[in-house]
Amino acid sequence: MKTVFSDLQLAHAPAQEISDGELKPAVEIPRRAEIVLETVRQRKVGDVVGSEEFPIRPLQRVHASHYVSFLESFWGRWTEAGRTKEAFPFVWPIRSLRQDVEIEHIDGLLGRYSMDAGTPVGEFTYQAARASANTALTGAKLILDGEKSAFALCRPPGHHAGFDFYGGYCFFNNAAVAAQYLRDYGLNRVAILDVDYHHGNGTQALFYDRPDVLFLSIHADPKNEYPYFLGFADETGEHAGTGFTRNWPLPLGTDWDAYTPALEEACRWLLVYKPDAMIVSLGLDCFENDPISGFRFKSEDYILLGQRLAKVGVPTLFLLEGGYAVDALGTNCVNVLEGFGGS
Amino acid sequence: MKTVFSDLQLAHAPAQEISDGELKPAVEIPRRAEIVLETVRQRKVGDVVGSEEFPIRPLQRVHASHYVSFLESFWGRWTEAGRTKEAFPFVWPIRSLRQDVEIEHIDGLLGRYSMDAGTPVGEFTYQAARASANTALTGAKLILDGEKSAFALCRPPGHHAGFDFYGGYCFFNNAAVAAQYLRDYGLNRVAILDVDYHHGNGTQALFYDRPDVLFLSIHADPKNEYPYFLGFADETGEHAGTGFTRNWPLPLGTDWDAYTPALEEACRWLLVYKPDAMIVSLGLDCFENDPISGFRFKSEDYILLGQRLAKVGVPTLFLLEGGYAVDALGTNCVNVLEGFGGS
Ligand SMILES: [Zn+2]
Ligand SMILES: [Zn+2]
Repeated sequence: MKTVFSDLQLAHAPAQEISDGELKPAVEIPRRAEIVLETVRQRKVGDVVGSEEFPIRPLQRVHASHYVSFLESFWGRWTEAGRTKEAFPFVWPIRSLRQDVEIEHIDGLLGRYSMDAGTPVGEFTYQAARASANTALTGAKLILDGEKSAFALCRPPGHHAGFDFYGGYCFFNNAAVAAQYLRDYGLNRVAILDVDYHHGNGTQALFYDRPDVLFLSIHADPKNEYPYFLGFADETGEHAGTGFTRNWPLPLGTDWDAYTPALEEACRWLLVYKPDAMIVSLGLDCFENDPISGFRFKSEDYILLGQRLAKVGVPTLFLLEGGYAVDALGTNCVNVLEGFGGS
Repeated sequence: MKTVFSDLQLAHAPAQEISDGELKPAVEIPRRAEIVLETVRQRKVGDVVGSEEFPIRPLQRVHASHYVSFLESFWGRWTEAGRTKEAFPFVWPIRSLRQDVEIEHIDGLLGRYSMDAGTPVGEFTYQAARASANTALTGAKLILDGEKSAFALCRPPGHHAGFDFYGGYCFFNNAAVAAQYLRDYGLNRVAILDVDYHHGNGTQALFYDRPDVLFLSIHADPKNEYPYFLGFADETGEHAGTGFTRNWPLPLGTDWDAYTPALEEACRWLLVYKPDAMIVSLGLDCFENDPISGFRFKSEDYILLGQRLAKVGVPTLFLLEGGYAVDALGTNCVNVLEGFGGS
């Protein structure tokens, strides 16, 4: 299985984040990608290829153009305003506030285009996020070119990012960008299986009214976990997409045995849907030692996860999402890829 | 003119706030109320009376009951969850996220019930906010009892707080609670004039569809200032309230001379509306030395403001809102009250 990666993805290097109401050292750091890449090489998963450059258009197929432009121009405007540190938004257009006004102020823009205060934006965030999306697109191209599987080593991750907002360490929704690209270049049915510990709220929302991209997510119950406001079992799609979203929210403390019934159900949905290709939003934060999460996967369980996904039997693009137990991240990730097998 | 105040309002004593993406020393501090009280006494504005206790009902007339309960129970739940420091929310239910789910997690609740990350909630926040609202209600009662004017020394302030959210240092919307009380106890028409530097987004939204409470606000253009997402000139009310909201957004750097045309227009609206009573949301943050604001009022200008408001000639309840140049806050506030006169 080929791995796609670009060094540009390392340029986003946040120092701090706001979490649980405190400023803490950032957990979504470049070292995450480095250790996965090192382990891919050590354990000889397959060739590592650079990501191709893509035009902006595939990003604009899932994100608002003005949102993409905002991220692109942000650091220039931020420093012009005399700011030097990484940026956090602090006010949001919630209920009774307006979404329809043209915002000029940089702090207004930050709130307009974000869902949380925990996701720092720095000088090279746009470049890294863009490179991460290009990595996903390159992986999608490999699938279109006939590869049975590919691993897009995306970072920063993507599944929390929505049509016009960032959050949860995510800026561009790599899985959604890749799924749309597969649709635009010939595939009729694409499935996204999100196994990150957190619900992929951005991905779900982007395809919520569409039957051509099935969205399945197994994750910590949003009653107890970020993103709190999406990912419940009663969300099953709307309009033409009714029935094409499925969520399996699971309680804190879930281990592999308690997880597998949901996984089996998700795999049955995949059999019924018969996608032309599957995208796996591969977060490794169900791991027992993950510093911000509450599931109890062991490293060996990730081999079983890979094996089970192989049995689905469709071309599969793995995309890295979360996972913050950095020391074990390479092992856990490559366990999935090795379990999956593939040439 | 009588001043209403309760020592309980001092119990909310935040240490830090998140502003412009950084943790900074809090500016909405108990000393603000103390210096105003001291100046009221020194300059013999009139008697200082304690605030009466009111039942929860007047608060629930403008705020969601579940929001009031959330604030009341918050600190217990926060400490039960093992947290000890003052609380900041960090994720919000913006576009594509759900408003309709029952949130259990304390961080989800914080996001559900807030509009910004800059407003710390501490152990005694509820008690102080409740006392601040009681101060406003006591002031309203003085007006109902026939006083021509009264000063409710409210703190924490209120005008950013909405139906079911806090933000901008505000928890209960003291002006809205007082206006509703005046309506409920006999007055037919109440006007709120908000002269705080910031737009009173909470107050506006609470009465946006109602003709019985006129809302007028003169403030920094939200294009350049918090709250960014409300307070534009094209917001004039809706449904039965169409025409009963007016905003005068003014550019950064506005001084008294540039402010007066808007004030004159607002006063003309008051003449036309002929309210039975007027509530002045008295923020003093248009002051030139205010640390978070960008207007250029001098201390003497506040005498002129008081004089102009006296000419409107209706029973007037002053409520303290913002103002963070603490050393000058007492002088500026009492300048308004003295300019207004009243026995
Ligand atoms: Zn995650
Ligand atoms: Zn203010």
